[in-house]
Amino acid sequence: MNERSLRGHVAIVGIGETPYYRHGRSPDVEFKLALRAILAACHDAGIDPREVDGFSSYSNDRTDPSRLAAALGLPQLRSTLMQWGGGGGGCCAAVANGAAAIMAGLADCVVVFRALAQGRHGRFGQAGSVRGASAEMAYMAPYGVISPAQKYAMKIRRFMHEHGVRQEALRAVALASYRHAQRNPRAVMYGRPLDESTYDASRWIVEPLHLYDCCMENDGAAAVVLASAERARRLARKPVYVIGAAAGSDHRTGAQPHNAPDYASASFVNVAQQAFRMAGVAPEDVGVVQAYENFTGGVVMALAEHGFFEPAQANEFMTPDNLSAPAGRLPLNTSGGNLAECYVHGFELVLEAVRQVRGTSTCQAARSDVAMVIGGPLVTPVSNLILGSERVL
Amino acid sequence: MNERSLRGHVAIVGIGETPYYRHGRSPDVEFKLALRAILAACHDAGIDPREVDGFSSYSNDRTDPSRLAAALGLPQLRSTLMQWGGGGGGCCAAVANGAAAIMAGLADCVVVFRALAQGRHGRFGQAGSVRGASAEMAYMAPYGVISPAQKYAMKIRRFMHEHGVRQEALRAVALASYRHAQRNPRAVMYGRPLDESTYDASRWIVEPLHLYDCCMENDGAAAVVLASAERARRLARKPVYVIGAAAGSDHRTGAQPHNAPDYASASFVNVAQQAFRMAGVAPEDVGVVQAYENFTGGVVMALAEHGFFEPAQANEFMTPDNLSAPAGRLPLNTSGGNLAECYVHGFELVLEAVRQVRGTSTCQAARSDVAMVIGGPLVTPVSNLILGSERVL
Repeated sequence: MNERSLRGHVAIVGIGETPYYRHGRSPDVEFKLALRAILAACHDAGIDPREVDGFSSYSNDRTDPSRLAAALGLPQLRSTLMQWGGGGGGCCAAVANGAAAIMAGLADCVVVFRALAQGRHGRFGQAGSVRGASAEMAYMAPYGVISPAQKYAMKIRRFMHEHGVRQEALRAVALASYRHAQRNPRAVMYGRPLDESTYDASRWIVEPLHLYDCCMENDGAAAVVLASAERARRLARKPVYVIGAAAGSDHRTGAQPHNAPDYASASFVNVAQQAFRMAGVAPEDVGVVQAYENFTGGVVMALAEHGFFEPAQANEFMTPDNLSAPAGRLPLNTSGGNLAECYVHGFELVLEAVRQVRGTSTCQAARSDVAMVIGGPLVTPVSNLILGSERVL
Repeated sequence: MNERSLRGHVAIVGIGETPYYRHGRSPDVEFKLALRAILAACHDAGIDPREVDGFSSYSNDRTDPSRLAAALGLPQLRSTLMQWGGGGGGCCAAVANGAAAIMAGLADCVVVFRALAQGRHGRFGQAGSVRGASAEMAYMAPYGVISPAQKYAMKIRRFMHEHGVRQEALRAVALASYRHAQRNPRAVMYGRPLDESTYDASRWIVEPLHLYDCCMENDGAAAVVLASAERARRLARKPVYVIGAAAGSDHRTGAQPHNAPDYASASFVNVAQQAFRMAGVAPEDVGVVQAYENFTGGVVMALAEHGFFEPAQANEFMTPDNLSAPAGRLPLNTSGGNLAECYVHGFELVLEAVRQVRGTSTCQAARSDVAMVIGGPLVTPVSNLILGSERVL
């Protein structure tokens, strides 16, 4: 009776986003950004916004779902889900949680979104502004480790040390993202290309992280509409099915012990296996990846933990050409992502994965029936998502 | 392939709680309270705590799930779910959300819990301490409406006015709860009975709410363990199946407009129908109810909106004898609930519903194969839960 798998039950039927703004440039408050993205996603789906009966988000998005329901005139609000913990690591889990609600009959049409106006609220990158981290901060702040960049730089450095990974592997993530952003008019960095020497000359934020290894701080919102697979087939857009998803962490990375043997982990060892198992696909079946870049080093680690290459192969695999659409070995962050499109806490990556499966990206990958999103390396819990076209069901 | 219903897929296989403490009397911090309740629930289930791979809660429970995973030594944490919005209205949704995660293959063994030490943190009942209510507060605080009792007293008064409901109907909730608590050694009010004259003579908090119409403020934690139905049948305890669940609100109650035609609603008009439909049962099939009492008047409204009686029948239906186990018309809050057992933000009601289906309550109802929990009347979103024995599957 019970296969206990999301595979193929739910599809993403619409996507929408606000214009993406540089930090502090949004003309609207976060609530209005959320509304604009949600209305755009409903319009894309061809669904009346009043059919929405659920909301799912992550990282304690400040947008109150009851207020959203009132503003959108929803006759009823049925499901309201927040991924608990993990900051940007929840960007894929929020989709899986909303899909599970639909599968369980708790809602019919769930909007998953993230709205973020760092220009009006706390900056994640600022020391001391890290929300929800009080427990672990007690162990780190006394040593001066108080910003995300500081926390994760040490893990990245250890990974590089253990596997002989060179700075160029990190640089490749930034260069591929900027290369893709030059073809994406939505991107904040559209028209602002990045080359090797500019990267190399840029200032250190925390070694081994240059300025361009760190995500931007932006204002914007992005949303997707989820519906049952049955409903999706009757709608205008090509359905993009949720075929695999997982979230979580190994408890030892969660507890952040800096002397643990698996300290240099992006937290995906178990989570990667689970998503591939649910989807019934292997890394080689994945045609294109969007991987959350809080920091480029985390992307290298996360891709390795997903089995796209062995850590010792990182230098060989992680080159701008290998990571570029259309025909690189693994086109990565084809919208520009957190580094060069817009930092909507990684949710813009989910929209780009949908575009890839639809075949409508500005940097379309050659193989895109199976597209993966990897959310929030290094944080805990993390999450991932495998989307697929009708062909792979 | 896809029935889109939780019914019968997941069961509650263990329950556990800390001792329940009067406000400020807990010897432990909230995190340790949570751990104690979780370990007790795992012990009750006969499950090694290290088999837990998910946590679900509500009302922004302060217990970080990654820290819990580390403290419990979980080899992996897979699902972390927070019901978004609704305060105590999420106490049932947290169970449904966890069950949906299991059904979707996102976790195998989810602990749902609430830990609350109001003695160490903000008091919900204190004006200005209402978390997450900033948007609506902007419309109410200028008129001096700043505590939950003030907000909800007006809705309750309007309901009483529209349907001719007398104070005695509210009093019956308090008297039944205290009557049941006298047989429940866990109850904070065990050994402290309440009679009509004491209720009548008690001070007004906000008319029509006497002192005894308002929930207590306590310290404690309560937890349940969820597993798939297949697994539940192999465990020691009698499985208690999730057969129906719903959450949400009508947008007009969500937006709190005090002049709306449906202002006098506990928010359950749609939510009640949805849970009954999923469960395939009617109000008359429900043998025993646990209904969240922030305030007694909300319980009267919520029961009416669930179809247990017409509002005009409230005076006749709501009597202490009708509401008492074993053989009243609808035994209500058979542990003493938020009023007299312990205010664990309503989660103690979920545990009591499990005991009723198991047949192990200290105030066992005569009919208990179908037990209902109603979470958080008057707030938004609200939620409910219908549990059933193997017999009703």
